Amino acid sequence: MASSSMSLFGLLLVLVILPFPSHASDPDPLQDICVADLDAPISINGFPCKPASEVTSDDFFTDFSKDPTTFDVFKRAVTFGDVSGFPAVNTQGVSLFRIDLGVGGINPPHTHPRATEAGIVLKGRVLVGFVTTNNTFFSKVLTPGMVFLIPRALVHFQLNVGNEPATFIPIFNTQNPGVSDSIGTIFDATPPVPNEVLTKSFRVGDDVINAIRAARAQSS
Amino acid sequence: MASSSMSLFGLLLVLVILPFPSHASDPDPLQDICVADLDAPISINGFPCKPASEVTSDDFFTDFSKDPTTFDVFKRAVTFGDVSGFPAVNTQGVSLFRIDLGVGGINPPHTHPRATEAGIVLKGRVLVGFVTTNNTFFSKVLTPGMVFLIPRALVHFQLNVGNEPATFIPIFNTQNPGVSDSIGTIFDATPPVPNEVLTKSFRVGDDVINAIRAARAQSS
Amino acid sequence: MASSSMSLFGLLLVLVILPFPSHASDPDPLQDICVADLDAPISINGFPCKPASEVTSDDFFTDFSKDPTTFDVFKRAVTFGDVSGFPAVNTQGVSLFRIDLGVGGINPPHTHPRATEAGIVLKGRVLVGFVTTNNTFFSKVLTPGMVFLIPRALVHFQLNVGNEPATFIPIFNTQNPGVSDSIGTIFDATPPVPNEVLTKSFRVGDDVINAIRAARAQSS
Amino acid sequence: MASSSMSLFGLLLVLVILPFPSHASDPDPLQDICVADLDAPISINGFPCKPASEVTSDDFFTDFSKDPTTFDVFKRAVTFGDVSGFPAVNTQGVSLFRIDLGVGGINPPHTHPRATEAGIVLKGRVLVGFVTTNNTFFSKVLTPGMVFLIPRALVHFQLNVGNEPATFIPIFNTQNPGVSDSIGTIFDATPPVPNEVLTKSFRVGDDVINAIRAARAQSS
Amino acid sequence: MASSSMSLFGLLLVLVILPFPSHASDPDPLQDICVADLDAPISINGFPCKPASEVTSDDFFTDFSKDPTTFDVFKRAVTFGDVSGFPAVNTQGVSLFRIDLGVGGINPPHTHPRATEAGIVLKGRVLVGFVTTNNTFFSKVLTPGMVFLIPRALVHFQLNVGNEPATFIPIFNTQNPGVSDSIGTIFDATPPVPNEVLTKSFRVGDDVINAIRAARAQSS
Amino acid sequence: MASSSMSLFGLLLVLVILPFPSHASDPDPLQDICVADLDAPISINGFPCKPASEVTSDDFFTDFSKDPTTFDVFKRAVTFGDVSGFPAVNTQGVSLFRIDLGVGGINPPHTHPRATEAGIVLKGRVLVGFVTTNNTFFSKVLTPGMVFLIPRALVHFQLNVGNEPATFIPIFNTQNPGVSDSIGTIFDATPPVPNEVLTKSFRVGDDVINAIRAARAQSS
Repeated sequence: MASSSMSLFGLLLVLVILPFPSHASDPDPLQDICVADLDAPISINGFPCKPASEVTSDDFFTDFSKDPTTFDVFKRAVTFGDVSGFPAVNTQGVSLFRIDLGVGGINPPHTHPRATEAGIVLKGRVLVGFVTTNNTFFSKVLTPGMVFLIPRALVHFQLNVGNEPATFIPIFNTQNPGVSDSIGTIFDATPPVPNEVLTKSFRVGDDVINAIRAARAQSS
Repeated sequence: MASSSMSLFGLLLVLVILPFPSHASDPDPLQDICVADLDAPISINGFPCKPASEVTSDDFFTDFSKDPTTFDVFKRAVTFGDVSGFPAVNTQGVSLFRIDLGVGGINPPHTHPRATEAGIVLKGRVLVGFVTTNNTFFSKVLTPGMVFLIPRALVHFQLNVGNEPATFIPIFNTQNPGVSDSIGTIFDATPPVPNEVLTKSFRVGDDVINAIRAARAQSS
Repeated sequence: MASSSMSLFGLLLVLVILPFPSHASDPDPLQDICVADLDAPISINGFPCKPASEVTSDDFFTDFSKDPTTFDVFKRAVTFGDVSGFPAVNTQGVSLFRIDLGVGGINPPHTHPRATEAGIVLKGRVLVGFVTTNNTFFSKVLTPGMVFLIPRALVHFQLNVGNEPATFIPIFNTQNPGVSDSIGTIFDATPPVPNEVLTKSFRVGDDVINAIRAARAQSS
Repeated sequence: MASSSMSLFGLLLVLVILPFPSHASDPDPLQDICVADLDAPISINGFPCKPASEVTSDDFFTDFSKDPTTFDVFKRAVTFGDVSGFPAVNTQGVSLFRIDLGVGGINPPHTHPRATEAGIVLKGRVLVGFVTTNNTFFSKVLTPGMVFLIPRALVHFQLNVGNEPATFIPIFNTQNPGVSDSIGTIFDATPPVPNEVLTKSFRVGDDVINAIRAARAQSS
Repeated sequence: MASSSMSLFGLLLVLVILPFPSHASDPDPLQDICVADLDAPISINGFPCKPASEVTSDDFFTDFSKDPTTFDVFKRAVTFGDVSGFPAVNTQGVSLFRIDLGVGGINPPHTHPRATEAGIVLKGRVLVGFVTTNNTFFSKVLTPGMVFLIPRALVHFQLNVGNEPATFIPIFNTQNPGVSDSIGTIFDATPPVPNEVLTKSFRVGDDVINAIRAARAQSS
Repeated sequence: MASSSMSLFGLLLVLVILPFPSHASDPDPLQDICVADLDAPISINGFPCKPASEVTSDDFFTDFSKDPTTFDVFKRAVTFGDVSGFPAVNTQGVSLFRIDLGVGGINPPHTHPRATEAGIVLKGRVLVGFVTTNNTFFSKVLTPGMVFLIPRALVHFQLNVGNEPATFIPIFNTQNPGVSDSIGTIFDATPPVPNEVLTKSFRVGDDVINAIRAARAQSS
């Protein structure tokens, strides 16, 4: 995910801050509060806590009210409420985001390893769908106020099928859901996944894989 | 909690359906999907699953879009997205609600045993506050689009401090957060908690306790 | 909670040592032993381990045999066996305390977020009660050798209803149960919870709330 | 373990009731209360819940006050407060027992798979010891009011080293700690563990193994 | 996954037996043994236990020694050691499989929701690779006796890059890892995922998507 | 466990590296990757993470292909794939080992506290057995390709009953299963477990215990 104004910078920040941007079904807290110290000198499972004496009310509140101004190649903008964007959720096993999709925008098929996602649509018309491990596809077009549930870690997507921008709030039972893009992990990895893996997995020739690579390169 | 149109009936239904309305930080799912069979003949930890052959897309979506029409004594209406209102969350470790507060309405001090709560305000001005186990009070007035985090199982409340109705979406990392009302459990239990417990705990005389009991009786 | 001789000092110590005094249903240990280093320079979920070379048999044993000499305003004294008083329980998911109640003493209504409590009465007659989330009150008067179970995180209390001091041993499935006092969190927080929250939640006038505040101030 | 009056019958009952007597670090409860239905027609992980309408206050209290009258071959008597003896602990992740040791009695080396044990001595002088996985032995002689901690699942024992009967209360962070007797599982299994396993593991001849078998047979 | 001799039948069986074939990081066992009763009349999280009286030694052992004789379209054959193929793992939080890849065979990019995978290569040369959520690709060619680790729920694949058939043993910390095929869930779902989702996610035209669909149809 | 060439050194290394060599059913990861930093200056539950910038593909692969050349007193050699030998498993909740048994060799009765073990035999004939907490013995002689399951934390052993060396791969749902040797913890602890504990637990005289001690001393 990459949001408009903050997308590139935010993504880079996350990559630097974390051992790896990621996901979880989380160990329980052992004290009331452990606001993440994102700059701690030591890297552990999750984050060390900011000193209690520095914690204030503002740590427990954040703001999703601003409309995004820049969108990524999928006409998508993400406002982060995971531990990287909202350090209060550290050790608390929960997070939430704001996702905006421009007209025709998509949050392409992806998984959140080990996290269940639910969410509510606030604006627009959104097709929400997921596929089970036996390849059954469940989906529905949602309008504002409607709620969805994506079972733990299944492949799912959200597509703006309306005539105006759409906004929804995905929620997670982890401080760090991460995003494993089903197509992006295959085509955009560094170093690249070998073509042979792709042709055999898609069961197509090199020409099709190269066509996809070319099209993606053009559109980024 | 009790929502407008469904409040009394829904609450009764929940009390009948469940061993007890309740809460959790949940065991992980052992299959993709286990939509709750709320009418199962056997009572277990959580709910048995509805047969897979009867599961359809509609099971995974629900509707929070309708404004409530009736409110409880706290000028509060609750739309349920826990396992009792949204059976898809069974075994998935997540739930979300819609809470509406009329002008001056309050969601009085309560805990959700073992669940972390977060949430987003959709309408109005809401004072959100919680108290840690060392009696530190954290709070803020939130406007639409603002987000809050209530650390795991701490006492908290939401108060409509604006001039119009307020709406917010609380989310939980459990299929069944339940509500343990800090004051209601003490004053409204059946059979009643003995007066001696209350006078000693509040450190007041019987007159004050009886005054509270009388005022509560009048206002219900 | 505050025990006789150690009460004030101990409580202060706990407040200083921990990010916040607290509670849990705990992550499993990843090694045999991780005795808490309460003075570690870094704050994490739980505590870092004392170096293995400094661990001795004495770390795994503590003493609850001394009768308390000073009691708090509730005629209550607490001997601590959580991670702050018995560092061996760090990562081990268990703790136990000794609680003494003078004649007429009470352990007022409270919750231990996410911990189940059980316990055994050693001396005296103790009324033990808890209230479920549907406001059902379960209780019994216990004599020495009798055992109680408080379901996970429900509001409960213990009242000495006998003619002599009482002693009981509460146990928890966490290294740090903490105490969220149902009444204390509301009336004794810093900064104070606004009166409007209290009048609306109790459904009484300012006079009653102020009467309680005055009475509590007088008795502390 | 086998307690005086209930020992044989209770042990048989447990063996019949459970798939196997056993142990755990338990899944969290998904409702307030799920008192075990020990006679349920279906066998699951833990136990189904007794119908909520049949639950009364008495379910949440039990009695450890009676001194045992019969002891096993180790001069040991066990009063059960696990799910088999105290069904309220089902789904609650906690249990406690009363163990009495006659003069010279022992609770021989054993493990509780995946459970941490702590406990308090109520009467007598008890040597409590455990051995880590790197074969370090930690131990202490405890007198009434003293507390011990046995790290998760390590081999440990309790020996009455005083001149009078001893009593202690072990506690566990599971509803069903079970007992895996380090020596009993090897020598008393049905069918028997082959002699070759024993001679090679003890690094002794058949004569020593047979001497142990003979002595144990004589003393049961 | 579909193994040679048992592939179609086994897959169908799994689809019928389970609410849905699936995956997990599992709740802990509450008794020694709970061998799955795959034909139980009730569907719960995981499986009910077979009666203890019917459990024998054979339940705890299975056989991966037979070489597969039929392979799927990916030249892949799977021998199942999850709960569907090895019911002893029910409640035990572990499973293992045997996977055979013909010359040029592949286990295409997929995730096991919430399970960590590790494994050992027994025969042949296998390229094992995974991609993190920040699109970093880690990989290596493994020969017999070499071991791999796939971090929790990340996209990964195994490709036979040698001149002879390859065999490896993947292991999981769950009784039911399931397989969410990154490409298969997108292209092979029922009902189909709409083309618009695919063109926008791949960022290609309908022609490319249709070419893939056609090629896959031809090769199945 | 102690492997041939690396046995003593490896064991010592483990003892030095860890607070204590040990075991678990593990907290979930909160990021993709947290390769253990075995030399970190701070000791926590598990290990801190190596900096992300130093992680390479080689971290995720290890080599079990080398046949051991030295064996311990049980004719046993262990190749380590727990967090001490394969740091990639840190936070991932899984590990695997290679165990070789010379002709007549044994992996004597032991437990892995809180870990389920499964495994596959690669070479030779191995008698695998375990004993439940009600002393039922389950066992079978396995040949190459056969698979076993040891329920969570029960006492078990593996004995080479063939005419040639045997090799098997045990797997665990923890990063650090540890080994609690049922006999070794009793006889080889430092300081020694008192003889009185042993004579009473075995129900034999001092002569038998001393005979075992003497025989073990001779054979080490």
